[in-house]
Amino acid sequence: VDIKQALTALHTKIKAIPHKGSRASYIPELSHVDPNKFGVFLAHLDGNGCGVGDYQEPFSIQSIAKVLSTTLAYKLGGESIWSRVGVEPSGTAFNSLLQLESDLGIPRNPFINSGAMVICDILISTLENPKEDFLAFVKTISNNKSLKYSTHIAESEKDVGFRNIALCNLIKSFDNLDNSPEEVLDFYFNLCSLEMTCEEAARLFLYLANDGLALDQKTQILTLSQSKRINALMQTCGFYDESGEFSFKVGLPGKSGVGGGILAILPEKFAILVWSPRLNDKGNSYKGMLFLEEFTTLTEQSIF
Amino acid sequence: VDIKQALTALHTKIKAIPHKGSRASYIPELSHVDPNKFGVFLAHLDGNGCGVGDYQEPFSIQSIAKVLSTTLAYKLGGESIWSRVGVEPSGTAFNSLLQLESDLGIPRNPFINSGAMVICDILISTLENPKEDFLAFVKTISNNKSLKYSTHIAESEKDVGFRNIALCNLIKSFDNLDNSPEEVLDFYFNLCSLEMTCEEAARLFLYLANDGLALDQKTQILTLSQSKRINALMQTCGFYDESGEFSFKVGLPGKSGVGGGILAILPEKFAILVWSPRLNDKGNSYKGMLFLEEFTTLTEQSIF
Amino acid sequence: VDIKQALTALHTKIKAIPHKGSRASYIPELSHVDPNKFGVFLAHLDGNGCGVGDYQEPFSIQSIAKVLSTTLAYKLGGESIWSRVGVEPSGTAFNSLLQLESDLGIPRNPFINSGAMVICDILISTLENPKEDFLAFVKTISNNKSLKYSTHIAESEKDVGFRNIALCNLIKSFDNLDNSPEEVLDFYFNLCSLEMTCEEAARLFLYLANDGLALDQKTQILTLSQSKRINALMQTCGFYDESGEFSFKVGLPGKSGVGGGILAILPEKFAILVWSPRLNDKGNSYKGMLFLEEFTTLTEQSIF
Amino acid sequence: VDIKQALTALHTKIKAIPHKGSRASYIPELSHVDPNKFGVFLAHLDGNGCGVGDYQEPFSIQSIAKVLSTTLAYKLGGESIWSRVGVEPSGTAFNSLLQLESDLGIPRNPFINSGAMVICDILISTLENPKEDFLAFVKTISNNKSLKYSTHIAESEKDVGFRNIALCNLIKSFDNLDNSPEEVLDFYFNLCSLEMTCEEAARLFLYLANDGLALDQKTQILTLSQSKRINALMQTCGFYDESGEFSFKVGLPGKSGVGGGILAILPEKFAILVWSPRLNDKGNSYKGMLFLEEFTTLTEQSIF
Repeated sequence: VDIKQALTALHTKIKAIPHKGSRASYIPELSHVDPNKFGVFLAHLDGNGCGVGDYQEPFSIQSIAKVLSTTLAYKLGGESIWSRVGVEPSGTAFNSLLQLESDLGIPRNPFINSGAMVICDILISTLENPKEDFLAFVKTISNNKSLKYSTHIAESEKDVGFRNIALCNLIKSFDNLDNSPEEVLDFYFNLCSLEMTCEEAARLFLYLANDGLALDQKTQILTLSQSKRINALMQTCGFYDESGEFSFKVGLPGKSGVGGGILAILPEKFAILVWSPRLNDKGNSYKGMLFLEEFTTLTEQSIF
Repeated sequence: VDIKQALTALHTKIKAIPHKGSRASYIPELSHVDPNKFGVFLAHLDGNGCGVGDYQEPFSIQSIAKVLSTTLAYKLGGESIWSRVGVEPSGTAFNSLLQLESDLGIPRNPFINSGAMVICDILISTLENPKEDFLAFVKTISNNKSLKYSTHIAESEKDVGFRNIALCNLIKSFDNLDNSPEEVLDFYFNLCSLEMTCEEAARLFLYLANDGLALDQKTQILTLSQSKRINALMQTCGFYDESGEFSFKVGLPGKSGVGGGILAILPEKFAILVWSPRLNDKGNSYKGMLFLEEFTTLTEQSIF
Repeated sequence: VDIKQALTALHTKIKAIPHKGSRASYIPELSHVDPNKFGVFLAHLDGNGCGVGDYQEPFSIQSIAKVLSTTLAYKLGGESIWSRVGVEPSGTAFNSLLQLESDLGIPRNPFINSGAMVICDILISTLENPKEDFLAFVKTISNNKSLKYSTHIAESEKDVGFRNIALCNLIKSFDNLDNSPEEVLDFYFNLCSLEMTCEEAARLFLYLANDGLALDQKTQILTLSQSKRINALMQTCGFYDESGEFSFKVGLPGKSGVGGGILAILPEKFAILVWSPRLNDKGNSYKGMLFLEEFTTLTEQSIF
Repeated sequence: VDIKQALTALHTKIKAIPHKGSRASYIPELSHVDPNKFGVFLAHLDGNGCGVGDYQEPFSIQSIAKVLSTTLAYKLGGESIWSRVGVEPSGTAFNSLLQLESDLGIPRNPFINSGAMVICDILISTLENPKEDFLAFVKTISNNKSLKYSTHIAESEKDVGFRNIALCNLIKSFDNLDNSPEEVLDFYFNLCSLEMTCEEAARLFLYLANDGLALDQKTQILTLSQSKRINALMQTCGFYDESGEFSFKVGLPGKSGVGGGILAILPEKFAILVWSPRLNDKGNSYKGMLFLEEFTTLTEQSIF
């Protein structure tokens, strides 16, 4: 199967399917995005790539950025970080307080909101200028000098993020934050506000298909083992309580964001980024899930 | 790395580690097994294989058999079976009633006890002589004509399986069983009582490394897609609430049983079976987990 | 306010209100009862009484009988019984497995199903011929020689009581039953099958308004303290997750049954029994609740 | 039994019992209180009263103040307030987020923390100068012109009240607060910081023994029905997940605070306030519970 043809054919086919779901409405800024946007970019390890649709338009990557924060915390802190956040699928919604309470403040994994907050706390304690240093790290990997936080999106989340404030204070009450909830939430909302195009994002995450090595083939962002483990985490925990479904139907490690983006990795081969803003009732891109399922079926590419 | 040498070296190393955990005590018969047993067998797709330790001694495969019942139900019922049992990791213990209650009787996946019971119910409704026909199916795959249920083990479980009886009646109360709880439990306890050696089991499950094709390379047990999906299910759900940990550390799809066995698959390559009866506090073989973690690290083999 | 007039006026008024709710449908036999039945009987400590409507027609008292089993177990076992069943409101539905699981098999109180089963287990271990001896005890209090279990009702429950079978086996799995689940359930279903009229039931329970003393003023069924404590239990736990509502609106200790009966006690004064088969969504008689609320408001009688 | 003698004898007896439990440690200021303090005051409807021990020393009444906020909200808002907060016992700890989540932001009752916050929100929306007006209301009832909030206690709670901040933001996320979490928490922490002596508190709450009528026998603070209903609420919900225990052993409506105070009411008779700072593991005064149990047993006074 020719990849370019497959991407184009599937893009056309799935674009025509009637929309289901709706944009993330709880973040006001996200509800202004054109819901018909639909872009795909596949970046090969050899440096080649292939895009279809709105793949050059920046969008809010939201929770996909949690892969980046986890990467940096893992790189800097090593295995010690797993004493403060687990590696298990949660089996519950992304913002469940119930589970966090019964787990005594240790989030199940770094990709649910609570876990990402603990990772933010680790980075705040480790980095000198947390927000600036983290952004610099992402710029280095991405070779994208213009990358920046979206103040609009971050502020928009802060104004209505009562549930996230609740989660963060609950973690703090269990003594699993070193910094104040305000600082942690500020970093967290900024982290989630990063904007990039499908192409930029697909290329940025190629290190996870490349055993932890950056695009320049020189910088070791993560060790081989760490890189495999981040993939394993995405496989079991990347889609909240739909992680099993994605693993079952798509067969690739991946991570979604409420901005409508989905990242998926085929180790040793490629990274792919699909973006379509309307979400299903689990908070994952409806057409993004569909596209990737059909893509791996058509091309018979999966880790299994 | 030479596989034979790696297996032998790791077997020696891990055998020497002081034991942690204890045998499954809630099934009286299982508590009579010699806790120091330790066997490993790796079966290659090319028909070769390699064993160390007690790999030719039969043991109770317990929940590993749930992969076989799911395989047969999937083969006979196709995608329709997923309307009665999910494909999501549970995030809870293998016998949680809580989650089953909040999910209104639809088990999270076919590898937790409740899910396996629903699969048993499907097989009872589909097969003419359920226990005999299922055994015949497994004999066909395994090329092991002497395979049989262990009446001792099955009866031993029945006598003390109050929690399983509770689970099964709870599913029935939600109308997700067509047959009586007694019939379903009888099949379920027999299913879990299958005994085989590490070598027999590793060879038996090679079809999952072989895109669904049996050892004889002629019989299609599952389609390519079905075979990949069973692997995906093992990846996210094979170790109860330690599934993420196994995926993170070992990086292979797998399934454990309280008899102390662990099955793992490297698609297109091999099936491996490790057996050591002492369990950690999540109900998975302590040394089995350890062995597989070190094995995939040493040989740098994982799906990620 | 004249009691007789009040009862008659309220009976007329509430009988005219359009029905809400429906009969307990999960017990087939109960769904055959005429849903328009509506009876009330108030029994005074002085021996006088006053009935309206269908107060002389026998109905299935169902869970109201749990007050009798608790009374006998308390009488025979004293305070020791509270080590196996609690005295706290559950805050959940009457048949919740979730809470029983998190409480490790110790039911919250003797009036939810699980708690009543533990009480049954205690009686089975204490009495020589449990069902006969318990019935004899109730006959003694009630001065009703013809009282008997309804085999139809008991069998009807057994056939469909999968959730109760689940509950009972779950308790057994936590080692909080001495006898087999089958024996306990048999006693339990028989206990709940007792039938009597509003008048018989109101007179039967007068001992709870009489500091534990029987109608004959000679037999001490419970001590003063025990009698007060049973009332306290009814106050906080008598109506499942609607106990607060009943306490709030009616202000009397009471106990409901899915047969549509509600018992209420005004200590030192009277016992009242209202029967109307249609239940609200919490499983309590819709018109029974309404009647008692208006009755205590009109007569300004409550314990508060 | 002579009340004065009973109080004195029990005070002596229980003072001598070795201490169990410890002071509330999560509010720093409360951990400075002398743990051996032990005071009791019983205020009769006829204006007489009787105190033992440290009954004239001010202490932090904490959650007992929730009876006052509920009283004022009920007085001003009538039955409409129960659409935003329930009247059911919670069956869980006083600060459970789990239940609030499954109940979609409607707290079970006004005496658990979440429920008290909703009541605070109602008062903020209703009163012109919420903190001042509420204090003025309490001063009026208590005839205590010097009553004031303790800034130290309120600030002390704010600094460490992460779990309360979490609860408040969770309620807000379910749209069950009209005002900002910051305003609600400020009022809430001030409410809980009220300080008074056993005598002042016992006299203050006499209106609940007096059918809602103030001490002066002229001001109707609550209607008869409202007053009974507040008592009913205390009976079923006054002691968090130990409410059943208190009802069972003491048999009076009551309310505890983590400052070590317990209020209990015998309608038409008296209000009693016991203060001893060491708490049991449910957060209720260890010796306060014991004192009241023995007091009602000795004097045979209870509502049942």
